[in-house]
Amino acid sequence: MGPSLAAAVLPKGFRFACRACGLKKHGLDLGLIVSETPASAACVFTTNLVKAAPIVISQQHLLRSAGKMRAIIVNSGNANCVTGAAGLVASNQTAAALARAMNCRTEQILVCSTGVIGLPLRVERILRAIPKLAAEVAAASRSFEQFTRAIMTTDTRPKWAAASCFVDGKRVHLLGCAKGAGMIHPQMATMLSFIVTDAAVSPPALRRALREAVAGSFNAITVDGDTSTNDTLAVLANGASGTRNIRPAGADYRKFLAALGSVCRSLALQIVADGEGAHRVVEIEVRGAASDRGADAIARTIANSPLVKTALAGGDPNWGRILAAAGRAGVRFDPDRAEIRMAGVTMCRSGRPVPFDEKTAHRKLLAKEVPIAVNLHGGRGSARIWTCDFTGDYVRINASYRS
Amino acid sequence: MGPSLAAAVLPKGFRFACRACGLKKHGLDLGLIVSETPASAACVFTTNLVKAAPIVISQQHLLRSAGKMRAIIVNSGNANCVTGAAGLVASNQTAAALARAMNCRTEQILVCSTGVIGLPLRVERILRAIPKLAAEVAAASRSFEQFTRAIMTTDTRPKWAAASCFVDGKRVHLLGCAKGAGMIHPQMATMLSFIVTDAAVSPPALRRALREAVAGSFNAITVDGDTSTNDTLAVLANGASGTRNIRPAGADYRKFLAALGSVCRSLALQIVADGEGAHRVVEIEVRGAASDRGADAIARTIANSPLVKTALAGGDPNWGRILAAAGRAGVRFDPDRAEIRMAGVTMCRSGRPVPFDEKTAHRKLLAKEVPIAVNLHGGRGSARIWTCDFTGDYVRINASYRS
Repeated sequence: MGPSLAAAVLPKGFRFACRACGLKKHGLDLGLIVSETPASAACVFTTNLVKAAPIVISQQHLLRSAGKMRAIIVNSGNANCVTGAAGLVASNQTAAALARAMNCRTEQILVCSTGVIGLPLRVERILRAIPKLAAEVAAASRSFEQFTRAIMTTDTRPKWAAASCFVDGKRVHLLGCAKGAGMIHPQMATMLSFIVTDAAVSPPALRRALREAVAGSFNAITVDGDTSTNDTLAVLANGASGTRNIRPAGADYRKFLAALGSVCRSLALQIVADGEGAHRVVEIEVRGAASDRGADAIARTIANSPLVKTALAGGDPNWGRILAAAGRAGVRFDPDRAEIRMAGVTMCRSGRPVPFDEKTAHRKLLAKEVPIAVNLHGGRGSARIWTCDFTGDYVRINASYRS
Repeated sequence: MGPSLAAAVLPKGFRFACRACGLKKHGLDLGLIVSETPASAACVFTTNLVKAAPIVISQQHLLRSAGKMRAIIVNSGNANCVTGAAGLVASNQTAAALARAMNCRTEQILVCSTGVIGLPLRVERILRAIPKLAAEVAAASRSFEQFTRAIMTTDTRPKWAAASCFVDGKRVHLLGCAKGAGMIHPQMATMLSFIVTDAAVSPPALRRALREAVAGSFNAITVDGDTSTNDTLAVLANGASGTRNIRPAGADYRKFLAALGSVCRSLALQIVADGEGAHRVVEIEVRGAASDRGADAIARTIANSPLVKTALAGGDPNWGRILAAAGRAGVRFDPDRAEIRMAGVTMCRSGRPVPFDEKTAHRKLLAKEVPIAVNLHGGRGSARIWTCDFTGDYVRINASYRS
């Protein structure tokens, strides 16, 4: 899960704080990230038609501030979703109160929420906590660590990742964190991720880099195929490293993209590994498809098949389910050329079973990380998707009646 | 589950038989349906790109015989899938041996298999059993009952349904059976269903009626979203009732379609009720969508959401997950007009939570049959889908390592 945070160097010019304001029964439930100067911002929001109030407000703020933001405020314990006009007012009040405390403009604030859907947000608890929260911000790794805990809901552990690269001979740092365990405890939802960097990047270049980094990380994972109403990924780049501006192409851009991609990849895989009830991370690679798009559709169908995922929970070398899932993905291929390997063991070649030692395969399939490789031998299209196994614990976590 | 079979009247001119030929460790594993005269046949086969050998052979036979068939032979215990040229030979040999024993043409035989994928079919065991099987056919309800057991794999109970209607003042009978528990034991798969009737129906009229009947029954159920490589639904109509020919329109057609639809609906719901690990059948009705197609997409997304299905396992009145699933279905609607009822309790109106008694709702959600009604108040499109809940037993059944 990356190096220990003590060893990581915080990006310059960012401060963090958190508090327990009473939205959760116990523990930290309000977090704040502040950039000392306006930072370029790029965000990816949920594609769900049902969008929580903070998403609507944050999208407005990004437009009004031309992508230059000062802070991100996050509460856990309540998603402020399906909460109507009152929900929008609550997110607005949160941003306005923080802007007053920081002496900046309201539209320079991003607002995020995660937790129960459909219950009114007790925004007065947030508003009461904001002055102290804003006063306590610190550029300390301990503050960042606490922030990563304040945004957790059903996560079993905090998730963060760091990277750096050289621009203009100077080192720039990236530091990110995430919460999300697939979706959801009963009525809990949401993947949230925040990445800060002291690189100097214009908003358009940052948006492009984020779009590219997300394709092979956050958009390539699936736990249960459900999409939350609150998903938010935000990157702030404040330029405090003092290096030259990174443009949306060229060597600087490529180095920055590689670093951003590694942070996104690490966070995305940490989310899968902490998927509700998950025992293992499964990498599904499809090659030899007619197109990348087709390979992606096949990989996602395999990754979301309950039959494949339950077989993986039991370490069952059940390649027949993988082939059957590929066959219903709506993509043309010749099953008689298909080759399937699970955990390095070839089980199917030219669409026919290959003898293998079941016991060895079973043992290998019980590892923490299991690769599945499907080669259709029908083209140059390829895709890679990460998922987790589907266990009785997933059902227990999600079927328990909220009492 | 329909009336008791003793009370049902068998369609005229059909005979049934079954045997234990040794493909399963224990019990009946070979079944036969014979029509005394060539019968109009209509079939629906899996849409999976990976098709088992018997599907390929049966499709050829339907074409070559112009849709007039004499018999259906079914084995359980082995799906004869991913078995290459040897698998095709095995299905061909099966049909040829039965044709010899019955003194008919090979292309008048439909062949079906269900069971393990990827293991060679021991066809010699089937071939050895065929002469006795063909000699033992009987027009007895007991023979039909045994047939319904011979096709079972992970099913916990046989599934059958009967109906009748009047054509030309005379009663015609329909009798059907099915196997399938979603998909799947480890490497077990497949929904099979066979319906016989003594109505006189031309192959084109029968194909049309089947297509219409399937839309609101077999194509409106989902257990885990997986599609087997062997799915087959076959209808035989032999005209032995002596009534006039049913044409593809008019009053006779509508009465026949209603009867066929009721048999298909009953069988489809029995499959859902016997879904692996299922505790309850859930009917999802979406109304007020811009189109039927949109309503169908939303209903299916809700029906296949692991979060919705696990909530249903626990009787959790978690309407937020239903709204969130609807929102990611890729269909436009206004969440602020959405209304959601679970088990008759309104929980959301105009996209806002409605207060309800949680304990009462929880108790109602623990019933064997649970209706979910979603009204989007945005048009006249509607759809209805049946599914089951997603329990720890499903995972246990499917995650167990085949030892």
